[in-house]
Amino acid sequence: MYVCKVIGKIISTVKNEKLVGHSIVLVQAAALNDRGSLEADGPVFAAADTIGCGEGNFVLVTRGSNARYACKCAEAPVDMAVVGILDGGQWGLS
Amino acid sequence: MYVCKVIGKIISTVKNEKLVGHSIVLVQAAALNDRGSLEADGPVFAAADTIGCGEGNFVLVTRGSNARYACKCAEAPVDMAVVGILDGGQWGLS
Amino acid sequence: MYVCKVIGKIISTVKNEKLVGHSIVLVQAAALNDRGSLEADGPVFAAADTIGCGEGNFVLVTRGSNARYACKCAEAPVDMAVVGILDGGQWGLS
Amino acid sequence: MYVCKVIGKIISTVKNEKLVGHSIVLVQAAALNDRGSLEADGPVFAAADTIGCGEGNFVLVTRGSNARYACKCAEAPVDMAVVGILDGGQWGLS
Amino acid sequence: MYVCKVIGKIISTVKNEKLVGHSIVLVQAAALNDRGSLEADGPVFAAADTIGCGEGNFVLVTRGSNARYACKCAEAPVDMAVVGILDGGQWGLS
Repeated sequence: MYVCKVIGKIISTVKNEKLVGHSIVLVQAAALNDRGSLEADGPVFAAADTIGCGEGNFVLVTRGSNARYACKCAEAPVDMAVVGILDGGQWGLS
Repeated sequence: MYVCKVIGKIISTVKNEKLVGHSIVLVQAAALNDRGSLEADGPVFAAADTIGCGEGNFVLVTRGSNARYACKCAEAPVDMAVVGILDGGQWGLS
Repeated sequence: MYVCKVIGKIISTVKNEKLVGHSIVLVQAAALNDRGSLEADGPVFAAADTIGCGEGNFVLVTRGSNARYACKCAEAPVDMAVVGILDGGQWGLS
Repeated sequence: MYVCKVIGKIISTVKNEKLVGHSIVLVQAAALNDRGSLEADGPVFAAADTIGCGEGNFVLVTRGSNARYACKCAEAPVDMAVVGILDGGQWGLS
Repeated sequence: MYVCKVIGKIISTVKNEKLVGHSIVLVQAAALNDRGSLEADGPVFAAADTIGCGEGNFVLVTRGSNARYACKCAEAPVDMAVVGILDGGQWGLS
């Protein structure tokens, strides 16, 4: 899975009808810095939020057909989904 | 999903017969700049337009088998599809 | 889909038996330059040619399981296939 | 498969219920240096550990739907899984 | 497919039981240099060898579920497989 930081919400009124009801968040890929801490430092993506994450959380993001399983919607045109929030106190996370 | 900017239409007369009827747009991957705004700054792709997007729109682009679901054509040789238009007033979008 | 330039043919006599009969071309990912024109400027890939493209053509290349659909061979170990040729007169193409 | 170095464990208490029971590790993509040795030098990912790897191991990481097969859980929202540990004495590994 | 150079064998005694019996090789993605020749110049991967390639060969590597087809093992946790060897006398190959 990608390890990403949640940057904020994405609002998209005009969308494919199978995306209706899915909360979408903007996330940025994380990297490990010289101090062994995770920091947002890479491309941004849009992911469906399946577990209620918040801005600033570091999260696990699954991709491809796996994302549809996470959304419990076999035909959702979703290819990235947040499936876990990293606990604080590890990898430099407060 | 990728977050991309729609650059314009792609015309392809000679194509796989299962692509006939699909409108294809040229999109460019977006990045978050220092001011927290989205801007087109990455590789370009061709995506099937399933919701009627226009040049300059920032859009959600799904990939892989998910794109076939978005196109409502189980055998379309499409691996990227536009599935949402970002509303204005967020992420520096007018 | 990737937008690529066809660089030439690839000959591979020793190959998986399910690749027999598929014409394979070397393609290079395209980018948009400052003048808004497409040019070959990225990694190279090998793709099955499903529509008879030629050296110098700019083409649409689909990936993953979608490529098997394009090849009309459900078990072909092909993960990239050319599915369209861009018309001239757009994106700086002659 | 990606060749990666295991950096350590990832703890994620809040997660998709289908991730419960899967041990998740932080891995970093490896590259081949000038001496022909593997070293951690690339993006980091989170992968399900299906074989009991440890920090410092160089491992094989499979992606996409293949990762679900490795986890023996057809609906696990896992898109990367550790499926092998490289033996020492090759590629500069102690 | 990726075009890669075979760098050598990978030995992995501790592995997922469905990987047993598959020969795994270390490959490096190839690029096209200024002289129009292929050379190893990119990330390294581990791929199942389905056709008996050797060190120094330039090969076609398929990814994702396509790799399982190439391995004739529907549940092999393999996401990259060598499916062809490029003939000599093209692309600067001896």
